[in-house]
Amino acid sequence: MEDKFVPNIVVGRLPLYLRTLQLMSQEGRRVTSSQELGERLGISAAQIRKDLSQFGEFGKQGTGYNIDFLTDQLRHILHVNKVWDVTVVGIGDVGHALARYQGFSNRGFRIVLLFDNSPLKIGTKVDEFVIQDISTLVAQIQAASVQIAMLSVPVDQAQIVTNLLVEAGVKSILNYAPINISVPSGVRVQYIDPVLHLQRMTYYLD
Amino acid sequence: MEDKFVPNIVVGRLPLYLRTLQLMSQEGRRVTSSQELGERLGISAAQIRKDLSQFGEFGKQGTGYNIDFLTDQLRHILHVNKVWDVTVVGIGDVGHALARYQGFSNRGFRIVLLFDNSPLKIGTKVDEFVIQDISTLVAQIQAASVQIAMLSVPVDQAQIVTNLLVEAGVKSILNYAPINISVPSGVRVQYIDPVLHLQRMTYYLD
Repeated sequence: MEDKFVPNIVVGRLPLYLRTLQLMSQEGRRVTSSQELGERLGISAAQIRKDLSQFGEFGKQGTGYNIDFLTDQLRHILHVNKVWDVTVVGIGDVGHALARYQGFSNRGFRIVLLFDNSPLKIGTKVDEFVIQDISTLVAQIQAASVQIAMLSVPVDQAQIVTNLLVEAGVKSILNYAPINISVPSGVRVQYIDPVLHLQRMTYYLD
Repeated sequence: MEDKFVPNIVVGRLPLYLRTLQLMSQEGRRVTSSQELGERLGISAAQIRKDLSQFGEFGKQGTGYNIDFLTDQLRHILHVNKVWDVTVVGIGDVGHALARYQGFSNRGFRIVLLFDNSPLKIGTKVDEFVIQDISTLVAQIQAASVQIAMLSVPVDQAQIVTNLLVEAGVKSILNYAPINISVPSGVRVQYIDPVLHLQRMTYYLD
C-alpha cells in the first residue's frame, strides 16, 4: 500500500500518530479515536481520518481504532517494523548526546558507528562505541551498509562530510549543523536547528 | 508591520531566510536574489518573494536584496534584534549539549539558567552555569523574567515541568521530550524529536 503517492506533509504527520499511539499503549490503553488523537496532537480529527485513509481502513465507525493494530500498521508503513542502523558523524556535545540518546529504542533505530576527525577523540569510547577516524568513513559505512546518518559536525565541515556520506551510500541525513546542505536526488535530508524553532516563537513575543 | 496577520507557515520560513542571509554575509556577500535564496533552501523564488512581500518591500526589481538590510529587517520582524534569556530544564545529555551549544550566539538567544532535580547535579557547573534545584524553578524564572525554556526532561516529567514553566510566566517552550505537552493559550510550544525526522525519511527507504 506504500506505492500510492502520498504528500510529504501527510507522511510527516504519521510519526506523530505513531508516537502518540505508542505512548497510549504504554499507558495500558487498547482503543482510541481520531478525536482523542487530535486533542493530544492539536490536529483536527478530520485531518487524522483523512491522513490515515490514504493507507487503508484502520478503524470502524463508532468503535474507533485498535491501538496495537494501528501501531503495527504505521510501523509497517513507515518501515520501522525493523531496526535501522544509524551513524553519528561529529562527536561534539550534540553528537555525544545523540550517541547516548535513549529515545531511539523501540522506535526503529540504533546507533552503530561514530566518527570524528579529532585525534583526541578517535579511539575513545562513548558507552560501548569506539569513535572511528572520519578518514575511514566511506569504507566503514559501505562495509556496514548503513543508510542513515546524523550529522553533527561544524558548519564549515557539513557539506564536505555530506559528500562523503553520499559517496558511502547513505540515503537519509538528519543534519544538526545549522546550514543547508546539497545532496543528489535520491538522498533525503531533514534538519534540526533549535534556533529556527526559537525564532519561530519570538515572532509572537514582545 | 508585525501587526498584520501572517500565516504561521510563513513565519516558520523566515528563520530559514535569516540563517541563510547571515551565512551569506559571513561569506562576504552583499547582495542576493530570491532565485539564489531559493536554490540554497529548496524553496521556489516566487514563494520567497511572496513570503517577504507580507512584511514590506525589501528588494528592487532587477537589483535583488541587500543582504545586510534584509537581515536587519528579518531580525526586527522575528524580534531577535535583541538577545532573549533562555532556561534549560533537565541537564541530561541533551540538556548538557544545549547548555553548551555554540549556535545561539548572534542569533538572538543566550542561556541564563539551568535546572535539574538530581542531587548529584544540583550545584555542579556546566561551563559558567551552576545547575539550580528544580524546586526553585518558579521563583528563579519569575525573578529573572525568563520567557523562553528548552525542556529536556524525561517523558514522564515533561507535563509536570511544563506546568511549572507556565506558572513561572514562560511563554515559549522548545520541548525535546518525545511527548506532546498541553499549555494554555498564549503559550507556544515547538518540538524537537529526532525520531520523527528519521521516520519521515525511512518511509522512502526499502
